[in-house]
Amino acid sequence: MSEKKYVTYGDSCSCGCGAPEGAKQITGCRFSLSEMSDRYIEYILGAIEKTDTSKVWSSTGKLSTIYRGKQIHVEDAVKACFINAFHEGVHMTMECTFSKGCPGDIEGDSYLAADDVLMNEPAIKDVHFPVACKIALYPMGIPDYMKYIAEVVNHAIDLGIYAGSAHYCTVLECDVQDLFAYINYVNDYCGKNLSHYIFEVTMSVNSPTK
Amino acid sequence: MSEKKYVTYGDSCSCGCGAPEGAKQITGCRFSLSEMSDRYIEYILGAIEKTDTSKVWSSTGKLSTIYRGKQIHVEDAVKACFINAFHEGVHMTMECTFSKGCPGDIEGDSYLAADDVLMNEPAIKDVHFPVACKIALYPMGIPDYMKYIAEVVNHAIDLGIYAGSAHYCTVLECDVQDLFAYINYVNDYCGKNLSHYIFEVTMSVNSPTK
Repeated sequence: MSEKKYVTYGDSCSCGCGAPEGAKQITGCRFSLSEMSDRYIEYILGAIEKTDTSKVWSSTGKLSTIYRGKQIHVEDAVKACFINAFHEGVHMTMECTFSKGCPGDIEGDSYLAADDVLMNEPAIKDVHFPVACKIALYPMGIPDYMKYIAEVVNHAIDLGIYAGSAHYCTVLECDVQDLFAYINYVNDYCGKNLSHYIFEVTMSVNSPTK
Repeated sequence: MSEKKYVTYGDSCSCGCGAPEGAKQITGCRFSLSEMSDRYIEYILGAIEKTDTSKVWSSTGKLSTIYRGKQIHVEDAVKACFINAFHEGVHMTMECTFSKGCPGDIEGDSYLAADDVLMNEPAIKDVHFPVACKIALYPMGIPDYMKYIAEVVNHAIDLGIYAGSAHYCTVLECDVQDLFAYINYVNDYCGKNLSHYIFEVTMSVNSPTK
């Protein structure tokens, strides 16, 4: 009988010192698109193909797609994929897990050398449609994590995009451009103030529920 | 101009002492069903209506449905809703956020007094179909959180349902009955060993991707 191969994340500590230096700079986003339509395959694959991913590392599997690299390029590609997946009148959701600083992370599977010129933004910056969204921030490894959550929620209140607090999440409602500007703010804020965080964002368009 | 109402989670500390005693016993699950079909409304509403929620507090909104109460009844209702949403040949996903112990939680919006007789299990215990699943555990407020994550991943390896580790998640593949037995184990383990945790589970059936 072959020996079982166990994982050993327990050897890492929360300061991220277990991860290689380069890995600490990598922002990642794992996302799943769901199109409530018989044509979901062409819509999802079409959105993924239309998105310029030349400045991120990307991989699509059975359950989700992942982009890794510099924060601004990951955000640019995720935003483009979401906008490219939008079809008038079709209910669609996108579940995104942004993360940075996992102590178990590796330096591979990422492009960090790219410059700061966004590949998708020029084509999508004038697209507007309303989005309903639930968010949850998980600052890891620290006792006073609730204050960081309050900070990002209160910033949404300041921006006028906050639509309420619910159990286990905060609800936002706004234009797609404002939402991605907010996501950029959260990733900036967390990247500066936290060694490891996860930011869950589930966006919904064209919901039949009022 | 009216004064802005900010949230104040920062006043809570991670030991959960900010939450009322009763709130610490409440397990919750917020979930979103996505059916990749033109008939998604009848499938989703049908699954929610068919599920016996008499022993949980429940609320359905634009973005998701939430069940709150005793852990076993929340799990029973979520499992039933997922199985009730299954349609042969239809690609469907369910994103679930299980959580317990949030320092900002309240005692309301929950039924804890119920006995331990499961309302849905007799009708669903013999249903079998394969599920692909990604999971992520977030133990909050403690520096050594990675060892708890390793513990639950290694238990999946022991059970033979582990299909691999990916960036920001672990992939499982197994029968629906085995998956919910594992979810019950994780909630049991985390409820005993952590004061506040979030367990993200996204399940997928009938994916066209091999």
